[in-house]
Amino acid sequence: MRIGVLKELHTDGVTIVPDTLKKNPALAPFFFIEKGAGQMAGFKDEDYEKYSNTATREEVLFKSDILISQEAIQEEELQKIKKGAIYISQFEPFNQPDISQKLKKYGIQGFSLDMIPRSTIAQSMDVLSSMASIAGYKSVLMAADRLNRHFPMMMTAAGTIRPAKVLVLGAGVAGLQAIATARKLGAMVEAFDVRKASKEEVESLGAKFVEVEGAADDSNAGGYAVEQSEDFIKRQKQEVQNRAIGADVIITTAQVRGRKAPVLVEKETVEKMQWGSVIIDLAASTGGNCALTKDGETYVHNGVIIIGDSGLARKMPRDSSTLFSNNVMNFLKLMFNKENELAVDLENEILKSSLV
Amino acid sequence: MRIGVLKELHTDGVTIVPDTLKKNPALAPFFFIEKGAGQMAGFKDEDYEKYSNTATREEVLFKSDILISQEAIQEEELQKIKKGAIYISQFEPFNQPDISQKLKKYGIQGFSLDMIPRSTIAQSMDVLSSMASIAGYKSVLMAADRLNRHFPMMMTAAGTIRPAKVLVLGAGVAGLQAIATARKLGAMVEAFDVRKASKEEVESLGAKFVEVEGAADDSNAGGYAVEQSEDFIKRQKQEVQNRAIGADVIITTAQVRGRKAPVLVEKETVEKMQWGSVIIDLAASTGGNCALTKDGETYVHNGVIIIGDSGLARKMPRDSSTLFSNNVMNFLKLMFNKENELAVDLENEILKSSLV
Repeated sequence: MRIGVLKELHTDGVTIVPDTLKKNPALAPFFFIEKGAGQMAGFKDEDYEKYSNTATREEVLFKSDILISQEAIQEEELQKIKKGAIYISQFEPFNQPDISQKLKKYGIQGFSLDMIPRSTIAQSMDVLSSMASIAGYKSVLMAADRLNRHFPMMMTAAGTIRPAKVLVLGAGVAGLQAIATARKLGAMVEAFDVRKASKEEVESLGAKFVEVEGAADDSNAGGYAVEQSEDFIKRQKQEVQNRAIGADVIITTAQVRGRKAPVLVEKETVEKMQWGSVIIDLAASTGGNCALTKDGETYVHNGVIIIGDSGLARKMPRDSSTLFSNNVMNFLKLMFNKENELAVDLENEILKSSLV
Repeated sequence: MRIGVLKELHTDGVTIVPDTLKKNPALAPFFFIEKGAGQMAGFKDEDYEKYSNTATREEVLFKSDILISQEAIQEEELQKIKKGAIYISQFEPFNQPDISQKLKKYGIQGFSLDMIPRSTIAQSMDVLSSMASIAGYKSVLMAADRLNRHFPMMMTAAGTIRPAKVLVLGAGVAGLQAIATARKLGAMVEAFDVRKASKEEVESLGAKFVEVEGAADDSNAGGYAVEQSEDFIKRQKQEVQNRAIGADVIITTAQVRGRKAPVLVEKETVEKMQWGSVIIDLAASTGGNCALTKDGETYVHNGVIIIGDSGLARKMPRDSSTLFSNNVMNFLKLMFNKENELAVDLENEILKSSLV
């Protein structure tokens, strides 16, 4: 039994960290980590070699029974994988509808970590939540570092500085973490979400919940946001515009699974904001919540800094790798029986949901 | 009476903001602000024009009775200033020993804001303290944004993340603000200062004070650090090395006025630090507290990010301008009598100290 871990090609993260191997001595000897895979996240080959093995990329590709990477590899590498092997990755089947055909073509059984259900029992494997939490934290740090003023109120001999105003759009995992972090730094925070349930969570973190009446019923949506009526979206935009004009920082996190992100901050809104304000759009990869967002880019419009980045967790590679690694290991253990033999039960709810 | 405010040539800040003029209606009409001076800090000409006047750079230079800029202008512009005019700036006479001759040559009376005594009565004019406080805050935000992991402890479904360890060297205004900010973000903080008085301040902020025995007596140094014995410096370096190796972030702020900054973090220490750690050296302009610091540069040595920057306050131009502006206005008022007429009393302790 060989479990192969590939080096990520476009980010600094790694899907398995040495500490996870240390904590799982029964499975650790099965692991073959691509040489240098952890380097940029701060994990050395010698740290891995204490518990597992390291190998070249070709060896990992050719010989693994189970293969792991965060970003799915391209077709030229897919064909190198052993027939019948299991490949665990983030295939994003919503955005890559042909991935299932591709995997079938090469006889690979794909499990997509982004399809793990958002239920209590799958929580310890939920990479989307782990990464969203980091992105929420990181977005506030980035905003605070780029803003031309303080987050906290400052009472100094040279006068009092008012706290920054932060507006968070979307109070899911990322949004809540952003609220908590901005509050820690002493900012005044307002937050908005179409899901009624989030009001209490927002307020418990010391932020003000912005309410717009008449949201669609979301009680059966499994924690995801649902689509809203045109009238609601119009009033919502008006309310957001009113709040945005007074905000020093806007962090947007509103996404609807499998669809384009709703535009909540219009061009005209940005143009009414203060010089030096910062917008960080975590929904950039699905079109962005701000009309001016460019995915993967930072630029300045009318003195307002606009950052579009849906992969912020990758910019904190040490901790994002650690959490991702724990998630993957918890998922992987579902595939093994008590004797540490591979035994994939496709009746298992979590494995069934994530099978591509 | 004309008080001229020049646009800064190398930074985004401005020395007088509209709010200061609004609060000082008696003096405001005397002010002539260079057009565009506040633009990059977020203050428009039209905001200034509500209370004062705007003018071209030439007009400001030629016609002002009192001239203000943060960075001292070059000789080719100095000669354009009215004979007998007052020029308030940061001349840094310690580093620019010929400045006094130059000012005399053009018949200008220079007052250097960086020479204001650090006494209680001058506190409201103390630009060095205001800017140091901002630099301390900003350094932590920069470090947190660049670090490959979280500052706070995180307890998640994917496991617990330990808090970051931050080491602050020098517990003056900048160091204390850095400690407070890092603590707010949930980091574990250790701090070190040769001044015995700082122990209590450090501990009151929830940080651990690192003690090295045998420091020189500093009770008559007016709040500045004094030079230490070679033996002390050696033991201090050893202690710092021990702490640094376990730190995720080091922020260094130790400066001795008019001298080169002490090297507290050696090359070998940096090389033992974790991959992805961050060092921010606020003493960079006087040589740096880290042996590898390059003033004004960010680079990576062995996976450790080293940022040398003694002008961090300038990177938060809106708030740094606001505090600077309040400081300057408080200083300027010393030069006026109750009838708002210019009446410079060189017997005044603060004016006498700052006269170049």
